[in-house]
Amino acid sequence: MTETRGITIVLSGGLDSTVLLAMAVEHGFRARTLTFDYGQHHAREIASAKRVAQYYDVVNDVVAVDLASLGMQSALLTKDVALPLDMASDDVRQRATIVPNRNLIMLSIAVAQASTYGHHFVWFGAHAGDRAVYPDCRPEFIEALNVTLRKAYGGQHPLVIAPFIDLSKGAIVRRGIELDAPLQYTWTCYAGGDEPCKRCGSCVERAEAFSANNAIDPFRREWW
Amino acid sequence: MTETRGITIVLSGGLDSTVLLAMAVEHGFRARTLTFDYGQHHAREIASAKRVAQYYDVVNDVVAVDLASLGMQSALLTKDVALPLDMASDDVRQRATIVPNRNLIMLSIAVAQASTYGHHFVWFGAHAGDRAVYPDCRPEFIEALNVTLRKAYGGQHPLVIAPFIDLSKGAIVRRGIELDAPLQYTWTCYAGGDEPCKRCGSCVERAEAFSANNAIDPFRREWW
Repeated sequence: MTETRGITIVLSGGLDSTVLLAMAVEHGFRARTLTFDYGQHHAREIASAKRVAQYYDVVNDVVAVDLASLGMQSALLTKDVALPLDMASDDVRQRATIVPNRNLIMLSIAVAQASTYGHHFVWFGAHAGDRAVYPDCRPEFIEALNVTLRKAYGGQHPLVIAPFIDLSKGAIVRRGIELDAPLQYTWTCYAGGDEPCKRCGSCVERAEAFSANNAIDPFRREWW
Repeated sequence: MTETRGITIVLSGGLDSTVLLAMAVEHGFRARTLTFDYGQHHAREIASAKRVAQYYDVVNDVVAVDLASLGMQSALLTKDVALPLDMASDDVRQRATIVPNRNLIMLSIAVAQASTYGHHFVWFGAHAGDRAVYPDCRPEFIEALNVTLRKAYGGQHPLVIAPFIDLSKGAIVRRGIELDAPLQYTWTCYAGGDEPCKRCGSCVERAEAFSANNAIDPFRREWW
């Protein structure tokens, strides 16, 4: 029997959330996607999210929350904080890319959207490789959030789930290739340029994930 | 010794948050205020917040999160949902004014702002009278939220506190009068007009709160 329950997917336009959407479509879920324009330098990812959503013919809502103008400090939001380059494995340096409370902000809005459309689930793309640097990508954060949501709604609420929480980026790319996900449309680089910088932690991690699958990143071939 | 620690105050422009700000100033806290433009019909309250913040010479940041355009259903956001009138005490009918997950959305942004400015606390104006209708104004919601924040930050985080959680609206107005808070600038009505409708639950509750103190609502005398 086809699964027709609704899911709200937080779609950044990167690899992880794109493969999530591919999985949801594969399982026959009725998906609706939500993308955040929060003042990130790499707003280029918003266009990628739009294109991925179009590929799957699902709705893509974009919600703007201008965190940059609130003065928040992060290498993703202001040039005052240097983006760490050429040191993907240096977790301490990568913390410069933390945006204060970003996932709670995004997920609280995604949950509100899910409840508006009667969706039982919110999926987001946190994966095992995020854990060391980003506390708000850890399982204990997601568990605590669901407890808080039960209180916020005074009962039934959309459940937040991170299906990739124990997967590496390499395993996610493998899943994406298996599902024929449109990885060629995804955007990963944090640097804010028109082409991937290949030096930020995010670019390096992407290259490693394709390499681990003996696969070539399809980005250059089809997107530009 | 003067208390100089910083506080972020969620300032709606209504009575409760205005008295909160008065209290913070009285205690010598370094206050910064945050107001939400979420698509509410009664956007008039945003101007009130600005004026109250000016009165106390504190910063007022306004953050826009367009919940209305995401299709959310609430009498505060769309004319498709009727605003309950002349029945302030009918809790079931008042639920039409719930905005999905509103307090988690607002507080998660306020916490991010607080951590940006090194503030240890976020104050917001939930009070005892909110409890029956709004689950996200109950103590158990706030407790769960602080647990989630500890996980989101992976350690120290701004603590969310609702100093009025056990006070009635009448007691808050009394505190505001004692502190000489600029209640004349506050806006309460949900109906979205240029003058208070005097019929929505919010207007009726305000009238009762002043009446309980044998006080006259200063709104008409000084604001227009």
